[in-house]
Amino acid sequence: MSSFNSRLKDIVQEKRSWLCVGLDMNPEALGNNDLSSLKDHSFKVIDATRDLAVAYKPNFAFFERWGAVGFAWLEEIVSYIGKEHITIADAKRGDIGNTADQYAKSIFDHFGFDSVTLNPYMGSDSILPFLSRKEKGAFILCRTSNRSAKELQDKMVDDEPYYLHVARFISGLNKNDNAGMVVGATAPEELQKIREIAPDSPLLIPGVGAQGGDLSHSLRVGNQSGIGLINVSRGISFVGDMSERSIHSAAANYVEQMRDILG
Amino acid sequence: MSSFNSRLKDIVQEKRSWLCVGLDMNPEALGNNDLSSLKDHSFKVIDATRDLAVAYKPNFAFFERWGAVGFAWLEEIVSYIGKEHITIADAKRGDIGNTADQYAKSIFDHFGFDSVTLNPYMGSDSILPFLSRKEKGAFILCRTSNRSAKELQDKMVDDEPYYLHVARFISGLNKNDNAGMVVGATAPEELQKIREIAPDSPLLIPGVGAQGGDLSHSLRVGNQSGIGLINVSRGISFVGDMSERSIHSAAANYVEQMRDILG
Repeated sequence: MSSFNSRLKDIVQEKRSWLCVGLDMNPEALGNNDLSSLKDHSFKVIDATRDLAVAYKPNFAFFERWGAVGFAWLEEIVSYIGKEHITIADAKRGDIGNTADQYAKSIFDHFGFDSVTLNPYMGSDSILPFLSRKEKGAFILCRTSNRSAKELQDKMVDDEPYYLHVARFISGLNKNDNAGMVVGATAPEELQKIREIAPDSPLLIPGVGAQGGDLSHSLRVGNQSGIGLINVSRGISFVGDMSERSIHSAAANYVEQMRDILG
Repeated sequence: MSSFNSRLKDIVQEKRSWLCVGLDMNPEALGNNDLSSLKDHSFKVIDATRDLAVAYKPNFAFFERWGAVGFAWLEEIVSYIGKEHITIADAKRGDIGNTADQYAKSIFDHFGFDSVTLNPYMGSDSILPFLSRKEKGAFILCRTSNRSAKELQDKMVDDEPYYLHVARFISGLNKNDNAGMVVGATAPEELQKIREIAPDSPLLIPGVGAQGGDLSHSLRVGNQSGIGLINVSRGISFVGDMSERSIHSAAANYVEQMRDILG
């Protein structure tokens, strides 16, 4: 069985796409607070983007908001996506070792995701339980896309910002070729510095679209070595009249731009 | 309506207890992988400790492991605990602002918890949505109890360890008297330094019991000002023959020791 990172690379090369579709199923964005409408919409987004997406990334918050029925919906989504795409559980988990074991069981075994997003603050205990199987991967927060990311991530340690220490820490955990990092498209210089420190790590790059990150720069730097996946959530799922046609067209437009940029 | 921090203080003073019962419902600890046995056990732990506990802290990982049915069980647990105790969702969430809004809806509105644990790495955007209602509280990770906590939390910034900068950052967010911190009992000197920086913050102190933290030191320092809650999970839920009597006796023993220590 191939490692997570090499499977990701193969799918990107085969599809010539770097698109991760974020499934942030926000009722306010749909303009409809009815759970069954949201569920239908989530399946529609998947159907409309299968030929274009490399990965799907459901964000757990939008499912947990509904409690048990939201989790049942998330179970259905993973199975609906199937095995031809990479699934990323955007859960940003992080807890002590024996608890991290339970989260790994939840995400990899119960839900059946291929990979997960994690928070590094608690150190290696909290991350290694997710990296023990080479075919399952983790994207660990390094420099995030939100406005307040700088408050703690940019503090200076030995004349270097904290997030670069985090980048080295994550690289050091990548013994099974299955660790990657989350780096926001809204932090272009930070992205370049991280790519230099971690030339092989897959990068998951959110923040293009609604958050204003630069697609061209993010894609070039993310893929100057290793793989850089570009996540788009709101800019695909809730675009135009939200029909399958509008969604497909928005995703196709992103992938065409990506192919042009990377030549 | 009183603020979260003042309600917590009132309950502690009225009960003369500083005990938070952690509900980490680990099937390996019960020696039984059957969900209905685990559910029965969780209700038994609550019944056996109602007179002694100030707070209950279910750890989400042990429920998420079961997917939707685990979340349904968690919904039952919050309702079973009722309104006489403080409920703490040990979820360690942290995400960008619009996603944090959804997590706050999940934890406070859907599940009905009084408070939550959060991870600070993404900064204030990721925390403020949980602090906007003064009656709902958040305990934010500062210096954790696990062995690898030191890897990133102890890095030096301006001649001070990172976790002290995090402590100041958390104090600065406490505009509504509802922010607290998580500080491990396994880090006794760190606990003292954090208490000095944040004299009023409620501290949630895990790591006594199975992880080896010192009860007496943690309790004294935690309560030299403000409130310091001591969390015990495995040392109460899975003690002796795991009968209601054993569980009550273990919890009573902790509370008696606490009353002796604080005089």
